[in-house]
Amino acid sequence: GLLDVCATCATLAERHRRTPMVGRTLLQQALPITFGLKAARWLALATRQVRALRERRERTLAVQLGGAAGTLASLGDNGLRVVEFLAEELKLPAPDLPWHTERDRVAEIAGTLGVVAGAMAKIANDIVLLAQTEVGEAMEGAAPGKGGSSALPHKRNPVDATSASAAARLAIGMVPVILSAMTQEHERAAGGWQAEWAAIPDLFRFTAGAVAGVRGAVAGLQIDAGHMRGNLDLTRGLIMAESLTMALAPHMGRPEAYRLVQALCNQVMGSEGDLRQVALEDMQVRATLSPAEIERVLDPTGYMGNADAFIDRALDAYRVIQTA
Amino acid sequence: GLLDVCATCATLAERHRRTPMVGRTLLQQALPITFGLKAARWLALATRQVRALRERRERTLAVQLGGAAGTLASLGDNGLRVVEFLAEELKLPAPDLPWHTERDRVAEIAGTLGVVAGAMAKIANDIVLLAQTEVGEAMEGAAPGKGGSSALPHKRNPVDATSASAAARLAIGMVPVILSAMTQEHERAAGGWQAEWAAIPDLFRFTAGAVAGVRGAVAGLQIDAGHMRGNLDLTRGLIMAESLTMALAPHMGRPEAYRLVQALCNQVMGSEGDLRQVALEDMQVRATLSPAEIERVLDPTGYMGNADAFIDRALDAYRVIQTA
Amino acid sequence: GLLDVCATCATLAERHRRTPMVGRTLLQQALPITFGLKAARWLALATRQVRALRERRERTLAVQLGGAAGTLASLGDNGLRVVEFLAEELKLPAPDLPWHTERDRVAEIAGTLGVVAGAMAKIANDIVLLAQTEVGEAMEGAAPGKGGSSALPHKRNPVDATSASAAARLAIGMVPVILSAMTQEHERAAGGWQAEWAAIPDLFRFTAGAVAGVRGAVAGLQIDAGHMRGNLDLTRGLIMAESLTMALAPHMGRPEAYRLVQALCNQVMGSEGDLRQVALEDMQVRATLSPAEIERVLDPTGYMGNADAFIDRALDAYRVIQTA
Amino acid sequence: GLLDVCATCATLAERHRRTPMVGRTLLQQALPITFGLKAARWLALATRQVRALRERRERTLAVQLGGAAGTLASLGDNGLRVVEFLAEELKLPAPDLPWHTERDRVAEIAGTLGVVAGAMAKIANDIVLLAQTEVGEAMEGAAPGKGGSSALPHKRNPVDATSASAAARLAIGMVPVILSAMTQEHERAAGGWQAEWAAIPDLFRFTAGAVAGVRGAVAGLQIDAGHMRGNLDLTRGLIMAESLTMALAPHMGRPEAYRLVQALCNQVMGSEGDLRQVALEDMQVRATLSPAEIERVLDPTGYMGNADAFIDRALDAYRVIQTA
Repeated sequence: GLLDVCATCATLAERHRRTPMVGRTLLQQALPITFGLKAARWLALATRQVRALRERRERTLAVQLGGAAGTLASLGDNGLRVVEFLAEELKLPAPDLPWHTERDRVAEIAGTLGVVAGAMAKIANDIVLLAQTEVGEAMEGAAPGKGGSSALPHKRNPVDATSASAAARLAIGMVPVILSAMTQEHERAAGGWQAEWAAIPDLFRFTAGAVAGVRGAVAGLQIDAGHMRGNLDLTRGLIMAESLTMALAPHMGRPEAYRLVQALCNQVMGSEGDLRQVALEDMQVRATLSPAEIERVLDPTGYMGNADAFIDRALDAYRVIQTA
Repeated sequence: GLLDVCATCATLAERHRRTPMVGRTLLQQALPITFGLKAARWLALATRQVRALRERRERTLAVQLGGAAGTLASLGDNGLRVVEFLAEELKLPAPDLPWHTERDRVAEIAGTLGVVAGAMAKIANDIVLLAQTEVGEAMEGAAPGKGGSSALPHKRNPVDATSASAAARLAIGMVPVILSAMTQEHERAAGGWQAEWAAIPDLFRFTAGAVAGVRGAVAGLQIDAGHMRGNLDLTRGLIMAESLTMALAPHMGRPEAYRLVQALCNQVMGSEGDLRQVALEDMQVRATLSPAEIERVLDPTGYMGNADAFIDRALDAYRVIQTA
Repeated sequence: GLLDVCATCATLAERHRRTPMVGRTLLQQALPITFGLKAARWLALATRQVRALRERRERTLAVQLGGAAGTLASLGDNGLRVVEFLAEELKLPAPDLPWHTERDRVAEIAGTLGVVAGAMAKIANDIVLLAQTEVGEAMEGAAPGKGGSSALPHKRNPVDATSASAAARLAIGMVPVILSAMTQEHERAAGGWQAEWAAIPDLFRFTAGAVAGVRGAVAGLQIDAGHMRGNLDLTRGLIMAESLTMALAPHMGRPEAYRLVQALCNQVMGSEGDLRQVALEDMQVRATLSPAEIERVLDPTGYMGNADAFIDRALDAYRVIQTA
Repeated sequence: GLLDVCATCATLAERHRRTPMVGRTLLQQALPITFGLKAARWLALATRQVRALRERRERTLAVQLGGAAGTLASLGDNGLRVVEFLAEELKLPAPDLPWHTERDRVAEIAGTLGVVAGAMAKIANDIVLLAQTEVGEAMEGAAPGKGGSSALPHKRNPVDATSASAAARLAIGMVPVILSAMTQEHERAAGGWQAEWAAIPDLFRFTAGAVAGVRGAVAGLQIDAGHMRGNLDLTRGLIMAESLTMALAPHMGRPEAYRLVQALCNQVMGSEGDLRQVALEDMQVRATLSPAEIERVLDPTGYMGNADAFIDRALDAYRVIQTA
């Protein structure tokens, strides 16, 4: 499940460490990133979920045995020992005291599964968005009978990501049911507990479905580095405006640099040209930066900040859970 | 907040260690417990919430700084150091990598707060139920202007517990909003992130409200041990049926003991008498148990199982978080 | 389903038109009502749900047929006629236009089912509360294997009401999933639509479960008029304080009457006596009301307001849906 | 609010009746539609919400007055008349009977508001998706200080749609809180009712926020017909595959036509050419259709099905609510 998602994301992060693509905020092109960084963020997210699930397993689960009212009275003097034996048998920790109507353990696990589902939905949604015909940067792998359309022969639908997204929504829907069901009356509840009987299996089932969907979606994910590169040029250099501003700022102060670059951008938007041309022709820029510097400053692949370090860190964190 | 709830519950658990009351399953009288045990379960629940919140604070929070697309490119070579400085300044851990659209940290905290709210709702609901006129076992403390009724001068409403219950419902309502909002697009979301701006403060506010309500409700809680004792007698001894069965079982086997006690219970229900009388008059019982044994077996205060040990353990766990 | 619930509630409302019981606010005794009125309120609630479901069936459902993108282009000139034929075949209205990603019809039905579930939960919860051992006013009917307890032979658990409450919680959990899934992308959604495939059947299934639970709970409901009468006396007349205030007010003004009755209530609470005795002995009261008037004013069965008219109205509304 | 949304959508539907664009399923290009049709679907959706809200106002709201326990006993013989007067004063219907703890009216309104919020989220999300840099088909109108980015001067963020999406999520989050709160105990609830005090205002506030966001987003919406036309060509004619299949089917049967077109599509995908060229060069196609027919069949603007009729119907339905 999740470990497969991690493994594939780790491979993608490593393989696409130098694959430039557009970073998007509010679904608008913003700045260049690498696809490796995006995959590393997915990896870090999935890695943290593995860690969270392991923590829940080790620290949250506990045997519940208390008899009808939580005193273990019917076991006479053997109550505490029976609990210990049962715990050993089930390989679960024995709790301090029975917790039939104190459902925080159950609810905490529900919350964690909800987060896992939400994490899967994030990755799935990114894939759906990257797979849009107009974006064309990633595509789910083909398999016989998968993702085609009976009416539309050319379509390759992101069916695994879609199914992950659907499953995640259903999983998340169970979480408030379980949290609300914590209001369990006295020593055994009339309603809240019984609701868990359906909600908890459904939550596990749907969360597993979300993980399975994402695993399928990333497993055969086809990255179109050409489209990624092409999309970087769609704004005719405007996504490098910040880079240019930063290069000019040390020479003229940030406010002035910002004003100047904004003027250049407006020029680009009102013309057919790109930021490179406009910058090379602008006297104030040229008084500050050489043509070679301008070229370098406007090259997306040179404005990746700490993407590389971040990829390394995500891979490191993944290695830790692999060996743990 | 929560620590006050713990402190009061610890006092109640200690003080009412020997206060017998009815344990209830599906809101039906089931077996005797002590109020000390009930308070100890509240205490254990609240103690675990303190622990969970501390864990979240230590392990889940982390600085987020990544620039527009999570590369820190605009900071040039200083990106990682700026993150470190910021983390120091805010006394928060620095994360492996920026996580602007990987919201699991935020969602995990939301889940934990939802559990805290649900825990408070459990305690509040128990208090509302104990305070019912017909139950009369606990009552919120009086305060000028609190809980009275303008139309009905005799009423003492469980207003703090009610307000805790209302706040908890609202808090839990925010959790799926935040989980659903994890589907954040690419490098900055268009909708999910912005929803958090209202949902997170509301979640904290409502959870704090639930804690405050429970703190108020338990702070002045008046326990009516007389009513608790009286309610133990309402079934004319039938809640001691399990105890009698267990005492007879070693002599005649559990199935036979169960059949016999069920017959005695039916006799009680069809008459004015109580289980004690019926048992003392039954030849099969008398052939097995002496009158003194019957008295002892049917005494609720003698059938508390491990209640005492459980109270000790809840107090111990509380001491650990007090000193931590 | 729902109509059976209505039928039973109508019978209960008629049969218990003159069965006095305690009305409770915040689970505290407040004023006398009749059980007939409570059943009439359940009836009115269930009747409105029948009406709402019928409205949804008549006004909200509509055929959806639009081809892949909602133009019906693949049907050439026959598109609109095919929709008409399909609508006839399915006995559903034909819509103005295809609505594959405009899911308000589906969501509106989901909302209505959520309300039906919530309505069932209200009735179920009242029954659970009335069935409490200490309240003892109602009990689910016995049936072989139903509601007993293996460990505790005397128990009669409100199992149908409990199961209704559990199902209602699960049904309500589906509603926000379906509402959130309305965000369906362009002409066919990637995730939201697919989530409906599980959420809508579950919503119907759980709502039907809640209705079935309440139907079972009310079907054999045993009303204990004796316990109801007994509980009316628990406050030693204090629940008639409002009645006495209202009787005194015309003579001395409402503020003065309120102050006087509050003083009498305090006297009752500080003594063993009841409001009747205290009132009969109070000179100010006696100067205003004759002993016979005092008796009448403090008789719960004389302070039922418009309960009778309300029962009639609920029965009338039920008759309308029966014949519609 | 909503009527402004309708008015703008009606204008867009009329104005763009002949503006071809791509229809998308699972965010993949599927078939041609017109932007007029998309706007008409938004219009129909918003129109139905206006109708639903009006229905709720007329049929669901009702005065609630019942005194402490719903009998109106304290009003003596005047109870029913006081309710009538109050209803007149508030210009609300008088209900059959008091409904303090039968909250279906409130919950039904909550459900409807949730649907309104979900409807707004649908429109907002479509706008966010159309505004993506790579899609470029629509853009929110510019206003001083609106939607710009301090760091990235070229950005035009879909801020109103984003804010609508955020508000809708928060609104929907309140719906299950209100539905769950229907479980109101006896004659006045301890928790559920009090939760409504915050949930209902929040629900109205957030729903209004969602409507306001969509109103702002559509008000100045700039449609880029050129980009829409350009995107239609992105698949090199493949989105016309269904049209070609339908044109061939009468001559060779649908299965054979489907196989043939699929083969042509594969040819397109493996080459630089488009479906038009490939079809014109295919002997089997040419044996069936003339070049002029092929051109016509592959022209997106000729494959709009009943889009026009649907636009008319949405406009008609809007006119009805305008005059009602």
